[in-house]
Amino acid sequence: MAKYIHWGATTQDIMDDASILQIKAGLQIRYHNGRPNPPPTRPLPCTFGYKCAIYLSSIHRHIQRLNELEPRCLLVQFGGAAGTLASLGSDNTGLRVRAQLARELNLYDPSITWHVTRDNIAEILNYLALIGGSLAKIAYDIIIMSSNELSEVSEPFVPHRGASSTMPQKRNPISSEVVLAASKLLRANAGLGLDAMVVDFERASGPWHLEWVAIPDSFVLTVGALHQTTFVLNGLVVNTDSMLENLLSTKGFIVGEAVMMGLAPVMGRQKAHDVVYEACKESIETKKPLLEVLLGRGDVMESKVDEDTLRKLCDPRNYLGASGLMVDRMVEECKIVS
Amino acid sequence: MAKYIHWGATTQDIMDDASILQIKAGLQIRYHNGRPNPPPTRPLPCTFGYKCAIYLSSIHRHIQRLNELEPRCLLVQFGGAAGTLASLGSDNTGLRVRAQLARELNLYDPSITWHVTRDNIAEILNYLALIGGSLAKIAYDIIIMSSNELSEVSEPFVPHRGASSTMPQKRNPISSEVVLAASKLLRANAGLGLDAMVVDFERASGPWHLEWVAIPDSFVLTVGALHQTTFVLNGLVVNTDSMLENLLSTKGFIVGEAVMMGLAPVMGRQKAHDVVYEACKESIETKKPLLEVLLGRGDVMESKVDEDTLRKLCDPRNYLGASGLMVDRMVEECKIVS
Amino acid sequence: MAKYIHWGATTQDIMDDASILQIKAGLQIRYHNGRPNPPPTRPLPCTFGYKCAIYLSSIHRHIQRLNELEPRCLLVQFGGAAGTLASLGSDNTGLRVRAQLARELNLYDPSITWHVTRDNIAEILNYLALIGGSLAKIAYDIIIMSSNELSEVSEPFVPHRGASSTMPQKRNPISSEVVLAASKLLRANAGLGLDAMVVDFERASGPWHLEWVAIPDSFVLTVGALHQTTFVLNGLVVNTDSMLENLLSTKGFIVGEAVMMGLAPVMGRQKAHDVVYEACKESIETKKPLLEVLLGRGDVMESKVDEDTLRKLCDPRNYLGASGLMVDRMVEECKIVS
Amino acid sequence: MAKYIHWGATTQDIMDDASILQIKAGLQIRYHNGRPNPPPTRPLPCTFGYKCAIYLSSIHRHIQRLNELEPRCLLVQFGGAAGTLASLGSDNTGLRVRAQLARELNLYDPSITWHVTRDNIAEILNYLALIGGSLAKIAYDIIIMSSNELSEVSEPFVPHRGASSTMPQKRNPISSEVVLAASKLLRANAGLGLDAMVVDFERASGPWHLEWVAIPDSFVLTVGALHQTTFVLNGLVVNTDSMLENLLSTKGFIVGEAVMMGLAPVMGRQKAHDVVYEACKESIETKKPLLEVLLGRGDVMESKVDEDTLRKLCDPRNYLGASGLMVDRMVEECKIVS
Repeated sequence: MAKYIHWGATTQDIMDDASILQIKAGLQIRYHNGRPNPPPTRPLPCTFGYKCAIYLSSIHRHIQRLNELEPRCLLVQFGGAAGTLASLGSDNTGLRVRAQLARELNLYDPSITWHVTRDNIAEILNYLALIGGSLAKIAYDIIIMSSNELSEVSEPFVPHRGASSTMPQKRNPISSEVVLAASKLLRANAGLGLDAMVVDFERASGPWHLEWVAIPDSFVLTVGALHQTTFVLNGLVVNTDSMLENLLSTKGFIVGEAVMMGLAPVMGRQKAHDVVYEACKESIETKKPLLEVLLGRGDVMESKVDEDTLRKLCDPRNYLGASGLMVDRMVEECKIVS
Repeated sequence: MAKYIHWGATTQDIMDDASILQIKAGLQIRYHNGRPNPPPTRPLPCTFGYKCAIYLSSIHRHIQRLNELEPRCLLVQFGGAAGTLASLGSDNTGLRVRAQLARELNLYDPSITWHVTRDNIAEILNYLALIGGSLAKIAYDIIIMSSNELSEVSEPFVPHRGASSTMPQKRNPISSEVVLAASKLLRANAGLGLDAMVVDFERASGPWHLEWVAIPDSFVLTVGALHQTTFVLNGLVVNTDSMLENLLSTKGFIVGEAVMMGLAPVMGRQKAHDVVYEACKESIETKKPLLEVLLGRGDVMESKVDEDTLRKLCDPRNYLGASGLMVDRMVEECKIVS
Repeated sequence: MAKYIHWGATTQDIMDDASILQIKAGLQIRYHNGRPNPPPTRPLPCTFGYKCAIYLSSIHRHIQRLNELEPRCLLVQFGGAAGTLASLGSDNTGLRVRAQLARELNLYDPSITWHVTRDNIAEILNYLALIGGSLAKIAYDIIIMSSNELSEVSEPFVPHRGASSTMPQKRNPISSEVVLAASKLLRANAGLGLDAMVVDFERASGPWHLEWVAIPDSFVLTVGALHQTTFVLNGLVVNTDSMLENLLSTKGFIVGEAVMMGLAPVMGRQKAHDVVYEACKESIETKKPLLEVLLGRGDVMESKVDEDTLRKLCDPRNYLGASGLMVDRMVEECKIVS
Repeated sequence: MAKYIHWGATTQDIMDDASILQIKAGLQIRYHNGRPNPPPTRPLPCTFGYKCAIYLSSIHRHIQRLNELEPRCLLVQFGGAAGTLASLGSDNTGLRVRAQLARELNLYDPSITWHVTRDNIAEILNYLALIGGSLAKIAYDIIIMSSNELSEVSEPFVPHRGASSTMPQKRNPISSEVVLAASKLLRANAGLGLDAMVVDFERASGPWHLEWVAIPDSFVLTVGALHQTTFVLNGLVVNTDSMLENLLSTKGFIVGEAVMMGLAPVMGRQKAHDVVYEACKESIETKKPLLEVLLGRGDVMESKVDEDTLRKLCDPRNYLGASGLMVDRMVEECKIVS
């Protein structure tokens, strides 16, 4: 199990420092080293396609999970009250009948009765909740992007849907809201499935009844959430003008990191940091674009950076890193599977 | 997805009849057809080894899950604030650095940044909760079997552990109680992990912090629960005398089904049912063993069933079905893997 | 808030010692001081009436809670999209209309719009879950007492209810099982209500939808659970013979504490402890009643305790403390209210 | 209980129509009557003071809850293993000792032992989770208002807090994020408290252990969340210029309702609706302010509405309804209490 503590810088950081205790204590949260400091709403530029490819990566993993789940979880259940197959005698008759039943129902035949080890039922409910979580992430992004202030996407237009008689101007992300709610219900049902694992002896006095509610509910909710997400993504209205406008609205702050990286080779890392920090501050106070402020600074102009380079550094569209390459990879990976 | 509705009679029954609505309404729960009627505490005899082999089957599936989880979930995380690897340029440098980092950390390298699709973290937390559920099922059985009235097993004896200064007579199933509690905490943490999937944009304003609590807690709780379970099962005191005594204490009721099955060929199924039903009733009222009551009934004696056969039918040790065969299968299956 | 740390020895103990950390660590749970050691299944004798009076005390508190909830939570909702009553003008017209509406609906009129502070809805769902918890405690006790091995109570007999065609001998605690399941569903719904409090701005993008599911479900589940509990308790078959038999089945161990307390004044506390400890051990090994073992011990016979006193000490019916007085108090308290 | 179905239009609506079933089915969600249609992000104008007064109303109710909780929940616990006070004899000595202990600890003395009816513990944990929910609502609003795109508020400035070495331009709502996370942990703990109510007999085999974790955690988390919220609200930087700018940025759409209401008396309700609907549509397409579009329409100019009236109708600051009066009421109500 030792491998687990590596699973990414995030966790390792947590284990290293005391932030975990700090959040629990809640009394004195300081981040002197800046590390657990989450980035701002839009920390750095990225493309909408990159966002979608990340969504796709989670769906891709869900397909993989489904393939692994089936032989483990879709088991035939046949065994009598204690699961011993006693009413079919003491030889292997019962086992042969069960095997045949499994074949006819297209289910898997387990080595031993599973009616009191409900890990497969709980795993299925967990799986559905995982799907719900991924769809809710997409839905939540769409809800934020649909807001008045961002206006980057809209759910598909359907007459009289999401519109208000007294407020004709607005189309609401109704489907995404429903998906978000479904994810929370799926989460609650997954909890019920885990609870229902704690069965007493060869029967179930209460836990079992939870499955009667949670199983059908979770399937219906998942189908519903998938349906709504498909509907939304198939007809999503993407407003690329607004996206660019919002990206540029930070007047260059969003690429402060890019500018610093670009200036570092010519003026040294520390000097570049200080220059950008001050320029950002001035830009905020004066509401002038970062580029304009930089062009007005003697220390920048004296360095070997020309205006054209500065202009490129200040354009968010030039600071997308390997996001395009990753999108290509992701799309390729999905092609192989399907 | 159509296959899912088959996964066993249980679910199909639910979908078929209205019991799901009945439990939700809760007002009028009737079970005319007797189907959703759960069996009594000890519905039919089974062996302790059979119980343990069923426990083993769930652990066996958990090992399988772990193997499947690793390549999907133990992913390197490296990408910068928006995951684009932008500070390493626009070519594939970032991707090559990340691949190398993955090799050095012995982690898997994903096609695309995953820091805002937390399905792998949530899956890990779900997995730990599944383990917790299986261990809690074992613990719960041990708690019941440890009770004064059953006295079938005891947790390993450690001086001054589980004993009371004022009640020297009792050894409590302390470890099992802790495992049961741990399973509930793991369940709550799995819910937090699902909640933390709903991240806004490329950052996390709140959800992420849940993982700081849930991830380390869940690993520690799982290790603790596994440790306690190993301790208990390694040194479990199994009181086979009490087990037999409790089995026989029902005076034969527990094999009512067996007797009915045995009498059916000679006196017809409906007649056999009525005879056993009446005999059980008399046995309850008079506190006489079922065998004795049956031997005293004219209709039984007039049938071709001799006393020796009746005696065998009334002995729970003769009504274990294929449980022994299933234990063998399960043990064999585990040998192959390990 | 300082007062809270006092709320009973239990919590204070926890805060004092390290057991809280130990359970979290789970690796090394030792209870050297014996304190957090829970008593055995039946730690000391008590009466069935005492159990019922304790159940009653929780129901009694629920009635009190309901009375307090109503003026706080049953608020009229009327305010328009942002709750400002703007469409009724800028004067107090809107407020007067709302007040009149509240009177007509027999609801309370809040000082300010509450549609984005859902603490009252969440409190109602919490309240219903609390009721569920109390009913589940009763149900769980009944399930255990209904088991083959204890046979102390049975749910009311209804033909064909809880009976099995192949196992005619058993009546299952069906209603209690349903109540136990309902309590878990109510718990999940209370969690959804708390989640739905986290509303964005003056609207609700998802959280609100949870209430559509949780509110009607929780009311229906609570009514169902109350109905089932009333049905069970109104017709509960109480088997006092089995209760006494089970009480006596410990052969006196259950009153080990009583005997120790009784011997302490005549032979000193430490000596009494050792004597009872040894006698219990012998009693377990030889399966002789504790009284018989004690009568056979020289050190006991030499003390000034006569056989009659010993016999009384060893009878669980003489070690009920103030339970009768507490039952009287509880019943009296309920009379005052109703 | 019949009163409950009234608690506001929201619930009644739900019960009336089929939307509850629709969300569960999730397959076909249509809102033909527009009723369950949530308003847009900023449905109608309101003041920041009005938002704060609503926050205050929930805190006000929490103070009331605390006062009601104390006599019900802060109970002395003293009773021995079965709660019978048996080791203090069969008279009322035990009860008198317990009463005296309650006085000394400044706790309440219950009529009967409560150690197996944990509704008071669960109520306390629920209460803390309710506080968490209210603080999270505030925190969530602050997180959204702190975003780049809105920039309406900032958490108090503390050097090096919430800032990033590579992104100097941004201050993150760190405290609010922590409060949001705390609310989710408090919610999970409330669920554990409800679970821990289902105790078996006079002891607790597992459930009790949950309280060892949940109680101290929840108190610490609540204190932490209250501390963070106090810190944020005491030093919150409120950017009223941005607030006005955002309000005006809708170019009048946000007061579409107001304009419709203002035009209805002079041109009839249906005509007014159609005119505003068309004007909003044109405004969206041409990006012209609503006022300008209206002034350019013949049907509006021909009506008796003069330009000055139209200008007033189109200014969100004139459509605040009774929000000011409600703020005054709320502040007054709090004065009375404190």
